Formats: sequence, C-alpha cells, structure tokens
Amino acid sequence: MVGKQEEHVFPIEYLKDFSTKVFMHFGVPEADAKEAAEVLAKSDLRGIDSHGVARLHSYFDMLTLGRINPNPDIKIVREKFSVATVDGDNGLGLVVGPKANEIAMEKAELYGSGWVSVCHTNHFGIAGYYPLKALERDLIGWAMTNTTKLVAPLWGAERMLGTNPIAIAFPGYKEPPIVIDLATSAASYGKLEIARRKKAEVPRGWIIDKDGHMTTNPDEMVQGGALLPLGSERETGGHKGYALAAMVDILCGVLGGANWGPFAPPFALRQEIPARSVGKGIGHFFGAMRIDGFIDKDEFKKQIDEWIRVFRNTQPAPGTNGPLIPGDPEREAEAIRSKQGIPLMKPVVDDLLDISQKTGIPFEVK
Amino acid sequence: MVGKQEEHVFPIEYLKDFSTKVFMHFGVPEADAKEAAEVLAKSDLRGIDSHGVARLHSYFDMLTLGRINPNPDIKIVREKFSVATVDGDNGLGLVVGPKANEIAMEKAELYGSGWVSVCHTNHFGIAGYYPLKALERDLIGWAMTNTTKLVAPLWGAERMLGTNPIAIAFPGYKEPPIVIDLATSAASYGKLEIARRKKAEVPRGWIIDKDGHMTTNPDEMVQGGALLPLGSERETGGHKGYALAAMVDILCGVLGGANWGPFAPPFALRQEIPARSVGKGIGHFFGAMRIDGFIDKDEFKKQIDEWIRVFRNTQPAPGTNGPLIPGDPEREAEAIRSKQGIPLMKPVVDDLLDISQKTGIPFEVK
Repeated sequence: MVGKQEEHVFPIEYLKDFSTKVFMHFGVPEADAKEAAEVLAKSDLRGIDSHGVARLHSYFDMLTLGRINPNPDIKIVREKFSVATVDGDNGLGLVVGPKANEIAMEKAELYGSGWVSVCHTNHFGIAGYYPLKALERDLIGWAMTNTTKLVAPLWGAERMLGTNPIAIAFPGYKEPPIVIDLATSAASYGKLEIARRKKAEVPRGWIIDKDGHMTTNPDEMVQGGALLPLGSERETGGHKGYALAAMVDILCGVLGGANWGPFAPPFALRQEIPARSVGKGIGHFFGAMRIDGFIDKDEFKKQIDEWIRVFRNTQPAPGTNGPLIPGDPEREAEAIRSKQGIPLMKPVVDDLLDISQKTGIPFEVK
Repeated sequence: MVGKQEEHVFPIEYLKDFSTKVFMHFGVPEADAKEAAEVLAKSDLRGIDSHGVARLHSYFDMLTLGRINPNPDIKIVREKFSVATVDGDNGLGLVVGPKANEIAMEKAELYGSGWVSVCHTNHFGIAGYYPLKALERDLIGWAMTNTTKLVAPLWGAERMLGTNPIAIAFPGYKEPPIVIDLATSAASYGKLEIARRKKAEVPRGWIIDKDGHMTTNPDEMVQGGALLPLGSERETGGHKGYALAAMVDILCGVLGGANWGPFAPPFALRQEIPARSVGKGIGHFFGAMRIDGFIDKDEFKKQIDEWIRVFRNTQPAPGTNGPLIPGDPEREAEAIRSKQGIPLMKPVVDDLLDISQKTGIPFEVK
C-alpha cells in the first residue's frame, strides 16, 4: 500500500521486463522467465506488495548461489487419471507452479477435475495467481503451498508450520469473480514488519515470544517467537487455523514427497536451513474442476452474480460500509495500478538497483 | 461433555437401535435407517454431543411434518468422470450424505479422485464422519456442508452464512489418523447455549448483537444477533473465516444447485423459513482422492506417522502439554465412550422419552 515513506512509481511493464531479464540472466529460458515475471507482476498489480518485485532480490540471491535450478526438467512422476505428483526439479516456484497448475487444468478438462501435488519446488508467488488462470478456462481453481516455518501450532511455543495459504476462485457472469486467497496464520509476517518499522505494538492474537507467551511487541516474535494460527487462542478457534495449516502442509508436503512442517527449506538467505530433510524442496497443491461437470456453466455464473449481490446487500456493521466480496480489494488495486503504475518503497528500489548493478541489466529511477 | 447436570449413561448400541427404529417408524428403509443411526452414533461416541441423538427429536419433528422424504430417490443428475452432482430428493442428510460420499469414493477408485456436490438434502450430522469412511478405503476424504444461517460476514450485521464445516482426514501407518473437522465460525452455537444455561459471558470475538456490535452476552446473539466467522475481527483475520465460509457455501450450495447463504432452509422447527428459495434444500460437497495416485501408500502413511511424532514433540506453550494432533480429543472420547457408554443430559433423555411415547418405540431409562 502507498505509505508516507519515499517511494517511486513504475509502470508494470517496466518492472515485468526487468524481472524477465534478471531471470534470463541466470539461464532461465525466455518463456519461463516471462511467466515468472508475470506471477510477480500480478502480485504488485493486486496490491500484495510483499510478494511482487519486493521479492526479486531473494530469487536473485538463490539463483546467484545456485540454490535454485534455472532450467529444471519438470515432470510427472506418478499419476492416475485426475491426480498426479509433479517433481519440479528444484526450479523457481514461479516456473514450476504455473506448469503444475497447467497439468491440473488439463486433467480437469479431460477427467472433470485435476489435482496435482508438487515436490522439489520453491516459493511460487501469490497463491491467488493460479485460480485466476483457471478462471480464464472456466474452471474452478485451487492452489495451496507450504512455506518456511513461521507459525506455532496451537499450544506450541515454536515455529513449526508456514503461513500455508489457500486460494480458490469462482467466476461470475456479469459480476467480477470471487477470488479467495488467505494465509492460515492470524496475520502475515509483512504486517509485523510494518509494525516494527513504525515501532508500533501489534494486536493481541498475532504473535508469541520465544517462550510461547502472547505478546504485542513485534520484536519479540522476530527474536525467536512465532506467528499464531488463524483464530489465535484456543477459545477463539486457534486450533482451527492450526488444523487448516496442517491440512495445507500435508497436501503440499507429505502427499507429493516434499519437505513438510519445520523442515520446509527457507525462501531467503537470511533464514536458517533446517537441520533435517524429509523430502524434496517445498510443496504445492493445485486443483481444478470443470463447472459443467456439476451444473450448467451459465446457470452457475448467474447464481454467483446473485450471491455477490445478496452479500453486498448485507446490513452493514456499525462504522463499516458492509461486507466486501473476497477479491474486491485486490481487483480495485489492479484497476488503479495497471493505469497509474506500481509504487515501490525506497528499500525495494534499492534492491532492484543492486540487482541492476550486479547483473548489468539497466534499471532506471526517474 | 460430561457436565455437573443430572445425566444418564446409555450403551451406544442401545441408542443406535432406538434411532434406527425411529427412522424406520417413518418409512425409512432398514439399511438407510441403520446408516443414519450410525452417523448419529459416531457423533456421540466422538464426544460431539450436539450432533448425536441430541438431534434426533429435530429429525423426528421434520419427518412427522413430512418435511423430509423418508424414502428418497437419490440420483446423479449430472457427471463428468471424476465429478458429479447428486440430487438427494429431500432425504435425510444422514442418508443422502453417506450415499453421495460413496459415489465420490467410487469415482476416486476409478479416476484417481471423486468430487460430488449435493443438492436437495438436509443436515448430514458431523462432517468428520465422511472422511472417516474414506480412511477405511485408504482414500483421503473431504466433506463440507452449508447450514442454516447463523454467522455474519465480516463487517455485516446480520446472519448470512451457516457454520459451514470443513472436514478432511489422512491415514497414519502405526499412528492413528489425522482427522480435521472444523466449523468456519469462531465458536459453535452449542458453546453459546452452554454459556446461556450457565448465565455466563462468552469471550470477545464470538458474537455480535442485532445491531452488529460486538458483545459478550450470549442472549444478545440469540435475540437477532449473529456468530462471528473464524478470526472474529478484521485485524485478527475475520475476513479469512468469512472467505472460508463463503467457499463452503459456494461448493455446497451454488455448485450443486442447492440453496445458499441466508436461504439455506432450517434444520429444526423453531428456526424461521427463509423468505426466498434459490435452489433445492441445503447442499453438501464430498471429495475423495487415491493416495497411490500421488505417492506410494505406505510411504505416505509412514511420513504421516513422522509428521505426528514431530508435532507431538513441539516445545509446549506455557501452561499446556503441547499441541494436539487434529482428531486426538475425538478419538480419546471414542475409546472411553465405546466402553463406558454415552452420557446424556436430562433434556436429551426427555426428548428421547417423548419420541418413545409418540411412536410407541420403547426407550428405557434405568
């Protein structure tokens, strides 16, 4: 979001072009590099700043050190009609993800639905990107991924699970689609970092300190504490967020033979490497379903329109404008940013300039 | 749970036999009646008292008034290999649910996975029952259902969604299975009723009053207020619980042509009938996946064992014994109750005696 900090605005095409060239610099084939840049761009367009070019330097680091394979041989290692496991050969998640999602969508077109667990992959950007691709083919798409440990299970005092997101989208007829994309933690690490920068407290229910006590001081989470799962405490449903994170971890990690739980390898250099490996890379899980295998496609979309209108007409809670439809804020950000460009904060611009300097790929700040 | 109130204990077989006879009294075929009684019994065994024989009187009422079809013609109305829509012909959810789940499992065996949306059905008991059936066939099973409105969307001031549960289970090798079964609301209506009986306040984050203000007085929820979604408020992730409830509502309601959102018909007589109908009955959604379509079955189960052991070894939060594995409390209840019997509180016993008197089916309290 646009803050008060110094920031520069860049056209999305300029950022996409830069990201593409950076990936190609490391030997990522052009089509893959473009796809990867597209995933990052979608995040910036949709206002999810933490997952866009702000992460390019982390991918750059991993590629520089040879910890990610720029030209992976991505293949199906096992399958049975509508289901499969894909080995990503340690490629960029931004490359492996779209390919595995494509396999799920092809299976859906053939068999009514397609479900793909992925091992030996890396962080894949925003989960919401994948169901958006499914919408283009009139499919209901799902995406999940496990991620580096940050979240404590309920009644645990240490990081054991990632923020493990779940995404799914449903197309409307005249209304825009419903796009759900949520981390299974109470709050994101990004929000915590914002609070730290502002030297602000965070709401109770977000974090614990290194001994497992609830705290509102974000520094205490960073120094060996953990995020809490969605629902936070037992009495407000923290066991439910923990169970959802576990579900994602098992579908993405255990089912496809990837690392799971605390053993998911790190995304960035600053994160510690787990002492133990129980599989290959991290894991994703993609699903796609043919709407017309269940119901007439237009009938479904028209009912979704009606669903949206009915929920928009909910009596608003005091001090609010009433409920949003999942996907509203991201779509509104995309409408604005695709015209006005992407605002990047100074540390992100500095990161891109650093990449530019090290690779010789021009990056200009006007 | 065993409270301080006066209660009687019954062997599970006795309760199951009584429920079976009650269903048969209304013309439910014997095999269906047994299956329906089995679903209720599983709930009582697993300690989920709200969804077991405590609900028999509601089913009894609906059958008495002819609002549920005792002998439905349950059929597939549309399908495409791994996916289908089933019309439950307004049967008991306890009968339609197991049959539709069976179709999902058969599809999984044939096509790697099976996904069934169900319309024209009624409340189906505990969601966790269905993935437990899938475990018997070495499948990963999912179940969801939409339910009568009780929950406000985030920033809404009225009931628009049910408590819409999500269940999924994963088999272990030597360890017991991981069984996830959670309502997408912050707390259950059952807990609210317990607080009311005790004239106690409830935690902040559970409920709003009729104007949409947060309250801790359970009476204010009952008098036209609503439950809050998992995550409660915006800053603790209430938008996520709302999105999950919406996902369940769309997969169960819209996808199969059932009623959705505030139009889901009531489960019990005391609940108001919605002013509008947008489909048939309520809706369920079942899924099943072949593990061996993804990975070697035993390899998967052994990793699940390891997952369980690793999570049990999490450093405990202060004042706790450490994290539970989803399904632990229910399995422990089942071990005790299958031997010692099911404790029923006096109002539940009175309900069963009332049914006995009205049907002539003997029910004895020793």
